Amino acid sequence: MATMREVAERAGVSIATVSFVLNGTKPVSPATRARIEAAMAELGYRRNVVARALARRRTNILAMVYPALDHRIGSAAAEFFTSAADAARTLDYHLVLWPVGSDGADLRELVGQGLADGVVLTEVQLHDPRLAILQETSTPFTLIGRTAEPGGLSYVDIDFDATVDLALQHLHDQGHRDIALISGDPRFEDYGPYVRTEAAYLRLAKDPLVVPSANTPASGKAAASRLPDHITAVLVLNEYAALGAASTRTVLPLLMTPETAALSTTPLTYLRTPAAELGRLATQALIQQLQGAPTPTPHLLPATLQERP
Amino acid sequence: MATMREVAERAGVSIATVSFVLNGTKPVSPATRARIEAAMAELGYRRNVVARALARRRTNILAMVYPALDHRIGSAAAEFFTSAADAARTLDYHLVLWPVGSDGADLRELVGQGLADGVVLTEVQLHDPRLAILQETSTPFTLIGRTAEPGGLSYVDIDFDATVDLALQHLHDQGHRDIALISGDPRFEDYGPYVRTEAAYLRLAKDPLVVPSANTPASGKAAASRLPDHITAVLVLNEYAALGAASTRTVLPLLMTPETAALSTTPLTYLRTPAAELGRLATQALIQQLQGAPTPTPHLLPATLQERP
Repeated sequence: MATMREVAERAGVSIATVSFVLNGTKPVSPATRARIEAAMAELGYRRNVVARALARRRTNILAMVYPALDHRIGSAAAEFFTSAADAARTLDYHLVLWPVGSDGADLRELVGQGLADGVVLTEVQLHDPRLAILQETSTPFTLIGRTAEPGGLSYVDIDFDATVDLALQHLHDQGHRDIALISGDPRFEDYGPYVRTEAAYLRLAKDPLVVPSANTPASGKAAASRLPDHITAVLVLNEYAALGAASTRTVLPLLMTPETAALSTTPLTYLRTPAAELGRLATQALIQQLQGAPTPTPHLLPATLQERP
Repeated sequence: MATMREVAERAGVSIATVSFVLNGTKPVSPATRARIEAAMAELGYRRNVVARALARRRTNILAMVYPALDHRIGSAAAEFFTSAADAARTLDYHLVLWPVGSDGADLRELVGQGLADGVVLTEVQLHDPRLAILQETSTPFTLIGRTAEPGGLSYVDIDFDATVDLALQHLHDQGHRDIALISGDPRFEDYGPYVRTEAAYLRLAKDPLVVPSANTPASGKAAASRLPDHITAVLVLNEYAALGAASTRTVLPLLMTPETAALSTTPLTYLRTPAAELGRLATQALIQQLQGAPTPTPHLLPATLQERP
């Protein structure tokens, strides 16, 4: 195998300059870089994997950033991760999960180490401090979810308008006219899915009525019990809340996984969250970016109706 | 900041030799390495973080290996990950999650890239092909779970004997004498928790009766319905199976998380899986290894009784 010295001689540069290109420690002019890379190619100089990753800042590793210490990994997050990892593997990447807080602590350090080529950001807030860190460090990224003003960003998200429309239409077809919404925990006022679902419901529903709930069966059940008697059906945003509400009311969960539906004691009709599709599309969009494609068109996907078995 | 050339001059070696030390690309004698490192220290030469990680083969990143494509990330896995990430952070490490198949495909490539200092291996099988890969690549590791012959390995695991003993004792105190076990899916015959729980039950129970079940409420309910009438109480290994069985029988789940217990329609007494403690202890044991301590004493922890509220 050729040595660095031979590469330097062939390219007519110092060993230090070859090292700068290999290690990315100092800027080298494009012409010199090209000469060195040509010399390496001609001599068959092969850097070891880590040295190569270091030089190119490429590891073929993608990181899904999930705030695991703030939000328990639930069934939708598990679907994001599994489908994203599977999509990455198909395209010769590895996807790993980084537990980074919602405030972005740790994120700067992890991306600064250059250990991933790009990031899939999850649990996106409307005003998300993690975006500035990714932009400042020039880290390629795709969002699952979106900020308040996502124009120009690469993202995939649920189409909340279409999902709520589909849900209300389904209940209307079943004869329901007075339909409430059990929404998310109002403390998460910066969380897109809660804000966008509620906005869509308030725009589309006749005589809207919204009750907040945490994402537990007990909280969902309590929320359902607070509804007035003329309400005949309820949309429920959070899937574990929906399990509790379902014991007392006609409910239609808006974003449920099949695994959670299987936990219901009575068979449920529900809207299936497109989590697996979003994980896959986000990974593909990120890899397209890494391969030099322009920022891909965002995808918005509605949940799909799953009739009770 | 000092340059590589100045370091080379000060140490009386070529720039290439400095580069070998920095990049780990060629062996350098301990004496020469010491001279170069002394020169770097005197001149205040600071490598960038990745170069340093590369040279020392240290990234301060730990990887939890979880077969996310084979096993959905359930509530216990989420607890392992969250508590391990938290424990790592306390000790100035980052813990990330690698979705590697049970057969070890991808594991060799990920550890070969030197991107993590050590591995916490989860969902350990009695005969686990991933161990050979970690041993061949000299990767420090700790198991959550253990193989059939774990002597000499660093591991933490549930104390299945003590857990089953506690469960049987509790039901006996409640007056039950005929106690069955709803065990795991018999296809997972190499999975320690199933094998060890069943062995403990068969040894400790009077007139034992075992029925297998997949980890879903429907399967647990079906398994409970197959039990003869003289059985008055049932131990259930899998937590989602326990939710289904609980609708028809007196059950005592053996390894449940509080989040899953909260999904039960009736309040449950259950044995709480020590998942958070195991995640923390495994991470601490791995970091001790990385810091040069001898292989730590394995920890075996029983589940703890949580009386219904």
